[in-house]
Amino acid sequence: MRLGILGGGQLARMLALAGYPLGFRFLFLDPAPDACAFPLGEALHGAYDDLDLLAQLANDTDKLTFEFENISAAALQSLSGIALDPPLEALSIKKDRNSEKALFQELAIPTTPFRTVDGPEDLAAAVQAFGRPVVLKTRSQGYDGKGQRIVRDANDDARALRELGEHRLIAERFIPFERELSVIAVRGSDGAQAFYPISENTHDNGILVRAESRPLDPMTERACALTGRLLERLQYVGTLALEFFEYEGELLANEFAPRVHNSGHWTIEGAETSQFENHLRAVAGMPLGSTAALGAVAMRNCIGTIPDPAPLLRLEGVHAHFYGKAPRPGRKLGHITVRARSEDELAARLAKLDAQLPSFRFSC
Amino acid sequence: MRLGILGGGQLARMLALAGYPLGFRFLFLDPAPDACAFPLGEALHGAYDDLDLLAQLANDTDKLTFEFENISAAALQSLSGIALDPPLEALSIKKDRNSEKALFQELAIPTTPFRTVDGPEDLAAAVQAFGRPVVLKTRSQGYDGKGQRIVRDANDDARALRELGEHRLIAERFIPFERELSVIAVRGSDGAQAFYPISENTHDNGILVRAESRPLDPMTERACALTGRLLERLQYVGTLALEFFEYEGELLANEFAPRVHNSGHWTIEGAETSQFENHLRAVAGMPLGSTAALGAVAMRNCIGTIPDPAPLLRLEGVHAHFYGKAPRPGRKLGHITVRARSEDELAARLAKLDAQLPSFRFSC
Repeated sequence: MRLGILGGGQLARMLALAGYPLGFRFLFLDPAPDACAFPLGEALHGAYDDLDLLAQLANDTDKLTFEFENISAAALQSLSGIALDPPLEALSIKKDRNSEKALFQELAIPTTPFRTVDGPEDLAAAVQAFGRPVVLKTRSQGYDGKGQRIVRDANDDARALRELGEHRLIAERFIPFERELSVIAVRGSDGAQAFYPISENTHDNGILVRAESRPLDPMTERACALTGRLLERLQYVGTLALEFFEYEGELLANEFAPRVHNSGHWTIEGAETSQFENHLRAVAGMPLGSTAALGAVAMRNCIGTIPDPAPLLRLEGVHAHFYGKAPRPGRKLGHITVRARSEDELAARLAKLDAQLPSFRFSC
Repeated sequence: MRLGILGGGQLARMLALAGYPLGFRFLFLDPAPDACAFPLGEALHGAYDDLDLLAQLANDTDKLTFEFENISAAALQSLSGIALDPPLEALSIKKDRNSEKALFQELAIPTTPFRTVDGPEDLAAAVQAFGRPVVLKTRSQGYDGKGQRIVRDANDDARALRELGEHRLIAERFIPFERELSVIAVRGSDGAQAFYPISENTHDNGILVRAESRPLDPMTERACALTGRLLERLQYVGTLALEFFEYEGELLANEFAPRVHNSGHWTIEGAETSQFENHLRAVAGMPLGSTAALGAVAMRNCIGTIPDPAPLLRLEGVHAHFYGKAPRPGRKLGHITVRARSEDELAARLAKLDAQLPSFRFSC
């Protein structure tokens, strides 16, 4: 199968690495001429809403998928008869935090209280309803903490509104959560669902910096059940991530990603079948692979700078994944996975990683 | 690092799949315009002894390696100042079965008795010395059973000599071996050596059809010690395979391959670090990764036809590796790895594989 991927970043790159062994070939579309997946396949260089390029991408491939949700659902919709998974509806709903939250409500998936905001009066009403601080977010185009402000006092209000563009925002109650969790799930074209062990995640300035696989977490059953509702309602095909806040014993859905997800990168070494391979299997109509854990595993993101690989690679159980991207502050350049036979061994290995590379404590 | 690879077949393809996560980029040289590694990097299309192309390959990369030993050591030697690993001497010795056998003798690595043959008198002398049958082989360009004949009686002699070209042959005593084993080993640029669990291999018509990892095999220590002599003598850098016959309690070296090897493909899922990643680490001067086994594992080759992936991928522990090559009788098109937590579980999984896909019994 020849697969067209909208987006040529590290997620597309890791999809390609997982797909060649299954016999896939790849054509990527990305506006960046040096997109890091480009060396691993054929490339179309241009905008995601360029209808000619999209038509070419569809014509030259058997199927389309995407690695990035900030693409034009409208442009894709305008192309007749394209074969695309995950389904366009997942993309359309995800493109607006209001419709995303409304879907959570429809499915009785608990989520943070929210209101739409299109100006100062709406923000004032939200503050009135939720108390301070509130979290103000753009309804679209947000990722890695971009397009968000925590509004702590009245002085912040006007600036936050101005910085975020006044309109098409939502305000959410600020949740002083105990943990951030995510479920990486996959649904096949035959309707089969599979769930990886849940991930416990740590963000820094809105960017994921670490994820730990939690195969025995007490929240597993609840988190997977909620995620399953979303997969079923969307008649989803492919890998999906649903992020939760854990707060006072309940899970509150924060957002979903209709794609492979950074908090599931540990599945490359830490699960029988990676999230990337299972996404491809689903999209190609193949049977899903086992999502069972292979030992204890954790991941660290490399943000802004690329670490010296030699000391890293001397550590037991460490696997490096560099994306071939030029360093830039705040940019995801790679990730490091650590695998061990037990949680105790994993803790010891992580301690060595952190001790040898102090900058790894929160980012590398 | 940008690595130049002589050869663009499945071994180069799997090197690329292992290398992108470490930050490598690839330039392949292969005479086949549709070489199966070409989609995974940049490609030079032409002959292995084309000095202009070799110079371009060397100039456009930081280092050279090869996936195939039937390339021109002389052409490479004529290029001044190239950075190449494994070392040219390994390639030169390997290119002549006589020098390969002589090296085994020099290192006191037991090998099958042999004589050089350059015509009927030499063959007659070999028959006299070893008894029938003898195995007649070309001294160079042999692989996958090509360039070999078993000479069982006097009627075979003339035909075998004619078919193999009369000159530059060797005759070996026929060994009715009990098992075929191989050691996949790697030596780093710092001299560190590492050995994977030994493989027990089955050939059919000279082509490897299956390999089983044998972490607890009683021959392990002996096999690794012999392989270590070879690594050290060659001041080898990279992955190397040494194949043995087991016969009457001793190991007899059959041949070595100065490259990653089909009998080590199971290391992708079955070892902490694959033979491909360790080859790249060695060639790039990085520290070697652990060669420890991850459970029980076995491999089946797909020869001549590509199996339907769906029933395969439903089986627990099964991982498919298709090479993107057009089917042709006797051609290696892919391999299937089966991993399990124990030998018993592995046996059960292999039984299911063989039962569902009868053609897998010896090839798929």
